[in-house]
Amino acid sequence: MKILILGGAGMVGQKVANYLIENGLDDREISELILYDVVDAKVSQSSFPVKVLSGNIADPEQSKVLANLEADVIFHLAAIVSGEAEKDFDKGWDINSKGGWNLLEALREKHVSSGEKYIPRLVFASSIAVFGGPFPNKIDDDFLCAPKTSYGAQKAMVELLVSDYSRKGYIDGLSVRLPTICVRPGKPNLAASSFFSGIIREPLNGVEAILPVSDDVRHWHASPRSAAKFFAHAATLDTSLLDGRRSLNLPGVSCTVAEQIEALGKVAGEDAVKLIKRVPDQDIISIVDNWPRNFDPARAIELGFTAESNFEEIIKVYLEDDFEG
Amino acid sequence: MKILILGGAGMVGQKVANYLIENGLDDREISELILYDVVDAKVSQSSFPVKVLSGNIADPEQSKVLANLEADVIFHLAAIVSGEAEKDFDKGWDINSKGGWNLLEALREKHVSSGEKYIPRLVFASSIAVFGGPFPNKIDDDFLCAPKTSYGAQKAMVELLVSDYSRKGYIDGLSVRLPTICVRPGKPNLAASSFFSGIIREPLNGVEAILPVSDDVRHWHASPRSAAKFFAHAATLDTSLLDGRRSLNLPGVSCTVAEQIEALGKVAGEDAVKLIKRVPDQDIISIVDNWPRNFDPARAIELGFTAESNFEEIIKVYLEDDFEG
Repeated sequence: MKILILGGAGMVGQKVANYLIENGLDDREISELILYDVVDAKVSQSSFPVKVLSGNIADPEQSKVLANLEADVIFHLAAIVSGEAEKDFDKGWDINSKGGWNLLEALREKHVSSGEKYIPRLVFASSIAVFGGPFPNKIDDDFLCAPKTSYGAQKAMVELLVSDYSRKGYIDGLSVRLPTICVRPGKPNLAASSFFSGIIREPLNGVEAILPVSDDVRHWHASPRSAAKFFAHAATLDTSLLDGRRSLNLPGVSCTVAEQIEALGKVAGEDAVKLIKRVPDQDIISIVDNWPRNFDPARAIELGFTAESNFEEIIKVYLEDDFEG
Repeated sequence: MKILILGGAGMVGQKVANYLIENGLDDREISELILYDVVDAKVSQSSFPVKVLSGNIADPEQSKVLANLEADVIFHLAAIVSGEAEKDFDKGWDINSKGGWNLLEALREKHVSSGEKYIPRLVFASSIAVFGGPFPNKIDDDFLCAPKTSYGAQKAMVELLVSDYSRKGYIDGLSVRLPTICVRPGKPNLAASSFFSGIIREPLNGVEAILPVSDDVRHWHASPRSAAKFFAHAATLDTSLLDGRRSLNLPGVSCTVAEQIEALGKVAGEDAVKLIKRVPDQDIISIVDNWPRNFDPARAIELGFTAESNFEEIIKVYLEDDFEG
């Protein structure tokens, strides 16, 4: 089985790659793993071949190159983040939407030219940003997508395409709506959600962190380790169980910023907590104000997806998997 | 005020045009009405100039031509119907989705080149086909779009674009999810929903009609006259009331095929009813099986949209507006 990760150099792409290298994919033999991104992806030592490819998914010609790889499983995580998509309208739609559409078109051509034999499993990294307020207390599996960011609209659009191309049998795809992934290792990024990780990661590393929103902001989180497991599980899921609804809200932890900070205090003490500096940022407040706070992801849970059950666990996953201090 | 109707030669486009010619648009002075379609639209006698343009909205160059008209209100009804979009995948996505996207891009360019002064009202003709089963008894305003036809996915995609381009201030748009328009005058078309009109229209005209689904199929209807009023109302609506949710489920009549036939009997007698011939068609049964049956369109009603209150009224509108027998 050949596996292709688009966005393979990104944080979650790397987590998926390393998960596959360490755990395989159920009982399927992995013959090759290909990591594709705009920059060269890092590669860990592996018992099966891992190849690195670079290119820009916004270039339609690249889609053909990718389809010609005839991967059995494609994880599509290539995207620019929410903050950047909001600032650069063209870039967001080009990469986050047209990039995905071009890929699906190239896969359909491959499907046709293979005599309809080639039907790859495609797992699309969607986001809870497909939802926009006002929200119920818990978002259930029947709640509408009314995104209030370009990023959310771009993700929702590709979800529609993944569903329709799958319904037609050109691919066998599904979209997983990731919670905010927390605690992200490394440096802050342009995502408006970056601070949710920053206020934990920076203090754990003895560094000051900026909190741009109020303590009562509630949000929906899962660890990078859970993200990798989501993708691996989605890659082997029996999609006939989805009954045509190929976008899934995934499990996660709902907590307020205050509860995040309380968990940080429990794990790392009050000195860590004191490193959090409150500097309200109206742009981020406005974006986050339109983000979901809590979910009842009944379908995904029934389908076997799992995540952490409280924020302390999420911090502990960071300490186990990514902390270098 | 200059008004442009895309799909101006189609049945609903013509109803909108004639409604504007007869009633104007509230207290706004109409300086020009432009009817655009792949074929030349019919024009009724009018107190203001009516121009006819022809072209294919799937051609990106055409979008620029249309944007250069600088219409104040654009009704976008240009589409191929559900049955055709299901049969011809490329044509459906090209016309129903890329056509809309190209138009929005051209309008955005016009917005920018006008020094951000040009912000047209765009009313996009969406459809209840954006919904896919399983359904609740009544679909409320928070129910998810999970289309199970390409046509529905194409409409849902353009809704996302209309919302995001509006949120960014490039246009001031909204999408109206039309019920199945019934009783359509004229001939049957390729829409899978065509029979809902056929089983009323043909018997009223003394002609045999084919019923391809069972009598207990429940569906959601509004008359062509209501459709014209929906568009006129949407053209002048205060969109700030939409609070960023720019797709609206419209009011209509929920009834079963049996109730449609009962209403036909009341209006036209049992001889008319006897002209309905039951010939099950598995393709149409499958498509219609995934269509909505009933709605609770609370937002649209609160915003002042109105339709008929029972199917007998819908038949009477046909007799008043379109019957030539």
